[in-house]
Amino acid sequence: MPDESPLPVTERTRHRRLREQGSTDRADLSAILAAGVICHLGVVVDGYPMVVPTVYGLDGDTLYLHGSVASRSLVSAPRATVCVTVTHVDGLVLARSVFEHGVNYRSAMIYGTPRLVTDREEKLAGLRALAEHIVPGQWDYARRPNSKELAKTSLLALGLAETSVKIRRGPPDDGDSPDAALPVWAGVLPLAAAWQDPEPDPALPPGIPLPPHIAALARRPPGIPHSLRHDLLG
Amino acid sequence: MPDESPLPVTERTRHRRLREQGSTDRADLSAILAAGVICHLGVVVDGYPMVVPTVYGLDGDTLYLHGSVASRSLVSAPRATVCVTVTHVDGLVLARSVFEHGVNYRSAMIYGTPRLVTDREEKLAGLRALAEHIVPGQWDYARRPNSKELAKTSLLALGLAETSVKIRRGPPDDGDSPDAALPVWAGVLPLAAAWQDPEPDPALPPGIPLPPHIAALARRPPGIPHSLRHDLLG
Repeated sequence: MPDESPLPVTERTRHRRLREQGSTDRADLSAILAAGVICHLGVVVDGYPMVVPTVYGLDGDTLYLHGSVASRSLVSAPRATVCVTVTHVDGLVLARSVFEHGVNYRSAMIYGTPRLVTDREEKLAGLRALAEHIVPGQWDYARRPNSKELAKTSLLALGLAETSVKIRRGPPDDGDSPDAALPVWAGVLPLAAAWQDPEPDPALPPGIPLPPHIAALARRPPGIPHSLRHDLLG
Repeated sequence: MPDESPLPVTERTRHRRLREQGSTDRADLSAILAAGVICHLGVVVDGYPMVVPTVYGLDGDTLYLHGSVASRSLVSAPRATVCVTVTHVDGLVLARSVFEHGVNYRSAMIYGTPRLVTDREEKLAGLRALAEHIVPGQWDYARRPNSKELAKTSLLALGLAETSVKIRRGPPDDGDSPDAALPVWAGVLPLAAAWQDPEPDPALPPGIPLPPHIAALARRPPGIPHSLRHDLLG
């Protein structure tokens, strides 16, 4: 049964600004993470921040990351706090005044201390989560990692216990201000992302068909519905 | 005349991993920044990293950010180093083996110490750069900030002197490996983002037409060509 309790609020996740955009609904967090292709991983290295784009996977309440991207940080500061942010830009908010312009977006910020995964079974499960996160069915279709590859891959696990969710939806906020009398068009310019037609590797020998689980993604937005995900996984 | 010298390499921007993906071409940096809608701003607060999505603008070699998003950091650590990352995901690299899977992407990481903009003229120019970055023509069309709004807005300026660019393009890397004999489809699943049809604010009075500079964006990817940008700006 899904956990329907609100996300806990900590000193780091308390919304100080634009409070109306904060959400403590776990369903919002799940939807944001499910729809993301990459996250931005923030680490502190020698006292300065480093923000690195990287893929991720989810298994229950655990987020998995390739450890290599954070290796500089992990070497210099094991057990350090990281911040993982997943953001979707849904549109531009075009108001009557420049001051009221903004962005419709959904974002999740996850704070925590990642754990290096060393157990072979968890490592395989985490890598499966990474592969399946974006292309469900790919783990069973492609060649899985062998022992040598597993040894070369470092994997990080991060809990979702300390998470901040922010969402802005809807039209501009100045529709009931004196500016509404200006002869200025106002509204939202939506932004949408979609997978395009798959492009075969030029090195692919003839006769290898495009598998249905990849073909099914074309023209769809990232983050396929859970129902379809289930179908594809069989 | 565009600066055609390579981007300088520092201890922070030297590519330690996946060196083949590093670029020191200023044209790559310009294209990545021009096509971005938001960046992810990394700051260190109380010793831990915070990664915040935010809009940005460009004026020559200066990147402008709304200061408010970094206010916690600015208050606690003025003159602190930040890291601004702009990332485009262009597609998934679906290889024969899970190990060789990856992402086609373009990203820029900018390190520096932001400067709080206090000069009124620079502030207006910076806010114009923010507005024009995504919707060219909007600064001249919407109501510009008045003195009260200007005072409420904090703006940060960040130079582009210390920047790291990484790019991955093309098919999977295992087309010439023993795995190429496997009966596994391999290739790229491209991802594309596009502005959709503008949605008028329900509060908009009848008779206010959609201006051409907004209409022109529909069905286009973010980051319109410079030539069109010039046309729209008149």
